[in-house]
Amino acid sequence: MFRNFNCGELNLEKVGTIVTLSGWVQKSRNLGNVLFIDLRDRYGITQLKFEQNNIQLFEKAQSLGREYVLKIVGKVVERESKNKNIKTGEIEVLVDELNILNPSKTPPFTIEDKTDGGEELRMKYRYLDIRRNKIRDNLILRHKISSEARNYLNSIGFIDVETPYLIKSTPEGARDFIVPSRMNPGKFYALPQSPQTFKQLLMVSGIDKYYQIVKCFRDEDLRADRQPEFTQIDCEMSFVNQSQVLETFEGLIKDLIFKIKNINVEDFKQITYEESISKYGTDKPDLRYDLEIINLSDTIAGTEFFDFFKYEFTAGIKIKSGSTISRKQIDNFSNYIKQQEVGGDKLFNIKINEDGIIKSTVDKFLSDKDKYSLASDLKLNKGDIAFFMSGERKNILSVLGNLRVFIAKSLDLINKNKFVPLWVIDFPLFEWDDENKRYSAMHHPFTAPKEEDIKKLSSNPLKVKANAYDLVINGNEVGGGSIRIHNKDLQNQIFSFLGFSEKEASEQFGFLMNAFEYGAPPHGGIAFGLDRLCAVINGDESIRDYIAFPKNNSGKDIMIESPSIIDKKIIEDLNLDISL
Amino acid sequence: MFRNFNCGELNLEKVGTIVTLSGWVQKSRNLGNVLFIDLRDRYGITQLKFEQNNIQLFEKAQSLGREYVLKIVGKVVERESKNKNIKTGEIEVLVDELNILNPSKTPPFTIEDKTDGGEELRMKYRYLDIRRNKIRDNLILRHKISSEARNYLNSIGFIDVETPYLIKSTPEGARDFIVPSRMNPGKFYALPQSPQTFKQLLMVSGIDKYYQIVKCFRDEDLRADRQPEFTQIDCEMSFVNQSQVLETFEGLIKDLIFKIKNINVEDFKQITYEESISKYGTDKPDLRYDLEIINLSDTIAGTEFFDFFKYEFTAGIKIKSGSTISRKQIDNFSNYIKQQEVGGDKLFNIKINEDGIIKSTVDKFLSDKDKYSLASDLKLNKGDIAFFMSGERKNILSVLGNLRVFIAKSLDLINKNKFVPLWVIDFPLFEWDDENKRYSAMHHPFTAPKEEDIKKLSSNPLKVKANAYDLVINGNEVGGGSIRIHNKDLQNQIFSFLGFSEKEASEQFGFLMNAFEYGAPPHGGIAFGLDRLCAVINGDESIRDYIAFPKNNSGKDIMIESPSIIDKKIIEDLNLDISL
Repeated sequence: MFRNFNCGELNLEKVGTIVTLSGWVQKSRNLGNVLFIDLRDRYGITQLKFEQNNIQLFEKAQSLGREYVLKIVGKVVERESKNKNIKTGEIEVLVDELNILNPSKTPPFTIEDKTDGGEELRMKYRYLDIRRNKIRDNLILRHKISSEARNYLNSIGFIDVETPYLIKSTPEGARDFIVPSRMNPGKFYALPQSPQTFKQLLMVSGIDKYYQIVKCFRDEDLRADRQPEFTQIDCEMSFVNQSQVLETFEGLIKDLIFKIKNINVEDFKQITYEESISKYGTDKPDLRYDLEIINLSDTIAGTEFFDFFKYEFTAGIKIKSGSTISRKQIDNFSNYIKQQEVGGDKLFNIKINEDGIIKSTVDKFLSDKDKYSLASDLKLNKGDIAFFMSGERKNILSVLGNLRVFIAKSLDLINKNKFVPLWVIDFPLFEWDDENKRYSAMHHPFTAPKEEDIKKLSSNPLKVKANAYDLVINGNEVGGGSIRIHNKDLQNQIFSFLGFSEKEASEQFGFLMNAFEYGAPPHGGIAFGLDRLCAVINGDESIRDYIAFPKNNSGKDIMIESPSIIDKKIIEDLNLDISL
Repeated sequence: MFRNFNCGELNLEKVGTIVTLSGWVQKSRNLGNVLFIDLRDRYGITQLKFEQNNIQLFEKAQSLGREYVLKIVGKVVERESKNKNIKTGEIEVLVDELNILNPSKTPPFTIEDKTDGGEELRMKYRYLDIRRNKIRDNLILRHKISSEARNYLNSIGFIDVETPYLIKSTPEGARDFIVPSRMNPGKFYALPQSPQTFKQLLMVSGIDKYYQIVKCFRDEDLRADRQPEFTQIDCEMSFVNQSQVLETFEGLIKDLIFKIKNINVEDFKQITYEESISKYGTDKPDLRYDLEIINLSDTIAGTEFFDFFKYEFTAGIKIKSGSTISRKQIDNFSNYIKQQEVGGDKLFNIKINEDGIIKSTVDKFLSDKDKYSLASDLKLNKGDIAFFMSGERKNILSVLGNLRVFIAKSLDLINKNKFVPLWVIDFPLFEWDDENKRYSAMHHPFTAPKEEDIKKLSSNPLKVKANAYDLVINGNEVGGGSIRIHNKDLQNQIFSFLGFSEKEASEQFGFLMNAFEYGAPPHGGIAFGLDRLCAVINGDESIRDYIAFPKNNSGKDIMIESPSIIDKKIIEDLNLDISL
């Protein structure tokens, strides 16, 4: 037997008990006549005590290095100097028997909360990095979130159904990872970017509430904090409309935040895509703070400022009680704007000092009346300041959206313990792909247009709204979905609109189109990014430390050195040549 | 709203209620003045009634075909002729409003328990096949088994950790599916055959109880009932010995059988590999029935029979009260033996008739004393019969092992409602690979030899026993595992024994060997085949109908037509050529 207790559970109640523990040497302190070792396992740390009167044992204990794996037998005793910070801090174990289960080389970085190891080194020795509290706790949190998500979905009748990983390549969307088939020479499987078509087929098959926590794959040029493989909580329902889908998954997210953080979140706001863009300059606004973007174009239109600059659009952001923020801070905001490189002009400001005088950095272009109008548009009170900018609408909204976040961070306006989830709804069905000169699906080609907009499909396609929705929490998109098309003709119409020939549509999605002819029910669903959801619920910016074995930005696992060169024979058996 | 009740829940208590239902037309019966439709969804069937007095509605109802998707509004009424076989059989819904949500072409096979569709057709239209009770119930059973397995493992402190799917190719074991990396030209990922090395790394990282329900991939020439992708319940523990691992997972399996079948299974038997082979001719014996193989070689050695045939080994199987089985049945057994094509001689028999006379098919080679000796070896009583065979030990045991199963099936000796799980333990560490003239790992190269056998590694390798174990239920191997090596030197020794050069071992498993140097704890684990476990618990022979979207024996998904030819450009971007 290696242990009958773990290193996180012994306390005063166990004093006098003979216990067996196993774990790792966290650190050791030799005081000459007595030697202490902190023994660590997943559950905590227990202090071991070696006394010099057992000289052989004491010498053996002296020889132990950091991260040695031990099994010890000893008696639980009360500590003289107690450590109130840890659960086991009132006791120690007076060791009688010491067994070195495995020695350890000195680890390449310290196994501490603040480690001396850099990112690269910690990735290479990920198995040591996971020994650190932070990473271990993240993995346990992820386990809890996925377990609670399953419990919740199970409790409301969802069925976990596994869909295949070796599927068919489709050129829509991101690039697929492909898998050569040896048994079918010249043919390839693809790894799923999501189980989208399969979950729709499950709806056709009558499984009316489906979920799966599932790996998805995208062969993209990786940006920071993207992974070639990532995990989704993937869900689909039949015989529901959009509001029922939102209600169902609002329940899930509320439950998760409650179970993990013990916080009761209010009912989620719903705002339209259009409103989100015009108020927050983004479709994933962080609503933990205010700082709405206010359109000033009408007022500006009547000013000398406008006559001079001729910009189509002006908008601003007000900071309450911000009139006294420092020159340096204001310069920071301006510099931040300059880094955005999206055009538009400089960042101006207007404020009402405590004495009631309105001042603006463009006073010379604004009459007193203009300034009062602006102050009124901005609902500016004494002591408030507002920043504003002019330029092309799309750019200005985007820049101010970013500035909004920057201001909130700079002025420490973000309550880290708050969760403000919201639904962004009424997304456009299409967007214009300027590079390829064609329309592309904003969500994906299976998304249903709003019924009342179907007639606009040919006349004004960019005005067609979709029954599509995103879940945004604290400025992060953590999920998205839509009501799907379940009618073959409409699906054909959309495919043809997106530039699929009939042949292409049939080759790639024929099975789905066929399925629609055999009694497809109305259906819709959603997918949540589990990696992101974990980070957001835990208040973190990066997903990487919520993944046990992540890849770096070149898609490499530097611990196992993958991808790697493989045997020529294997390539040949797949009827392939490498052409480098 | 599409429904406020489902098709499986209305009963007499709801009479008078106006309800909205959605579902599929199972069948319709037009009695002239009244028309009945069975409306089906995941939860059951509800009878809809249309009366002729609403002529428009009646005509619309007449137009409905099988598998049309409907939404109806109507009133729950008591049925005149009740159907006690279904939950909703006492009521029907008198329809007021009928909405065709989607029409359906006539399905290519009937959506009935006994369908007229062949295997191939049902695979092509799998989304229709899943509408059948049998397949749908199988998928729900699978969901329950994986949910209960998670609940159980969570409750005893296991952590669900996801390991990567894009890993590194290793030539050990079966063939890998490989995935070309576009970002790393000329290099490849592999899909995991199991998360073996990663779960061992998790043990090194201190996650002392890990599990994952995870897809695994093997590019094998498929035999019947094998899938290129399959699902494992994969588990690993630290600081445990073999008996603790067995105890833990015996608990899991007992819990599953109880939760799913409401059967309390007795403590599992444990038998050694050697005992299993000699008693049952296989390492996965079905212990729902007796029919042990009995070694008769010693007795035979003294007979004329032996003098004549000179076979090294003779063994038999006794059938209690079998003396009266028909000539035809006996011929069946003999013919079955002939089909095995493994050598050995004919199948003989010996029996004691009700009158006490011992008769054998080889009477002329056996003295009365020989026959009494054989009868005594076989513990033959009046009315019993035994079949026996002579030949090479390995072949005879294998043939009799198969015959044992064949007899049990032929004579209907198998209690289908019984579960007899057992642990087969003490597997040999190596087996001799006659084709490649080398030793290969019987389980896998990370399996620990029994400590007392380590000294035999060089002198008598085939005698080295492993700390390896299989879980067998009703003749099916549903899981297997081992205590692993956690010491770099021993692991190196095993690799070199298996024919890995130092360079190969380091290239393929260097990360694991390195990890062993930083304080690897003793650890071991197990993996269960989920597909198989579902089939076995449900008393089925084939796994295919427990997989939502299985592939056929050529590794093809004939529904989506995968694998498929892909765009040349994609192959080029991966720096590959197809060489056909």
